[in-house]
Amino acid sequence: MSQSHLDARREQILDAARDLFAARGFAHTSMPDIVEKSGLSVGAIYRYFTGKDEIVRAICEQGAQSLPGELTAPAIRAFLEEVQTLSKQRGHAQLVAQIYAEAAVSPDVAGIVRTQLDEVRARLAALVPERDAADARRMAVAFAALCQGYSLQMAVGVDVDVDAATAALLAASRL
Amino acid sequence: MSQSHLDARREQILDAARDLFAARGFAHTSMPDIVEKSGLSVGAIYRYFTGKDEIVRAICEQGAQSLPGELTAPAIRAFLEEVQTLSKQRGHAQLVAQIYAEAAVSPDVAGIVRTQLDEVRARLAALVPERDAADARRMAVAFAALCQGYSLQMAVGVDVDVDAATAALLAASRL
Repeated sequence: MSQSHLDARREQILDAARDLFAARGFAHTSMPDIVEKSGLSVGAIYRYFTGKDEIVRAICEQGAQSLPGELTAPAIRAFLEEVQTLSKQRGHAQLVAQIYAEAAVSPDVAGIVRTQLDEVRARLAALVPERDAADARRMAVAFAALCQGYSLQMAVGVDVDVDAATAALLAASRL
Repeated sequence: MSQSHLDARREQILDAARDLFAARGFAHTSMPDIVEKSGLSVGAIYRYFTGKDEIVRAICEQGAQSLPGELTAPAIRAFLEEVQTLSKQRGHAQLVAQIYAEAAVSPDVAGIVRTQLDEVRARLAALVPERDAADARRMAVAFAALCQGYSLQMAVGVDVDVDAATAALLAASRL
């Protein structure tokens, strides 16, 4: 099987898992549910992932990549609009809420989430190379917290005001 | 039975539910689990709450009451320290993560959480009576989002830097 075929199958499993976690919650989704939803065979899935925790790790790794490319109002606004669209169409914010809830009761998943959070913060801090490292880190922590808060609000169906959220994130980026 | 006795029993049920939701997650906690943990009888519990959703409503109503009394650095710091202590000792942040995850998949619980969030924002906006209502509302939305984000971080075991978080919340309060 070619690498692109393998990658496509892996993505197929992750898509199925994302949809199920977002719609039912992590606790109510089993590996057999994911197998069924993905349309692949049990054997095929276990070739890619040994269990739900590994799937969550892969989802987190992908999630850490979607951040604004720079800390300007247009880039932050575009990022927020994308997250909002993904949440309405694909349950992205709902998925994040499920992953954090699982992390709150599972030390293994908590470790995965903290690693992702560290990567997110490092990427954010790298957007302000001119700043002192400790300052950049503090900014990144606050910026990430604000994103998480808006994500939680989207998860419970609050219509986040993108203008106001952009202004708040821009202020956080200057902390 | 006296009102204070009734109140104490109700609190006993809520304490049991909070502990179980925080430790196992909402989905893995049943009404019989809460009955057993509370030490009361099934009949007694159903006299206070018809099910988990009503218990979540009561937990949310109490949660909306713990906010800083004013938007000053000392008050915000004291508030953050209290939340951090409650999270380490009683799983407060873990509980919040469970409630949001349940709200993300249950329209009823989402409605309860949005009502609480509205109350939190109204209380925050009321702390700046000198400001224009729309401005105060935007500030309150950002302030609440930041609190939610730090709460999520605490839920997954991140040691939140109270100095940095106080500075970020103070900046949000001036948005």
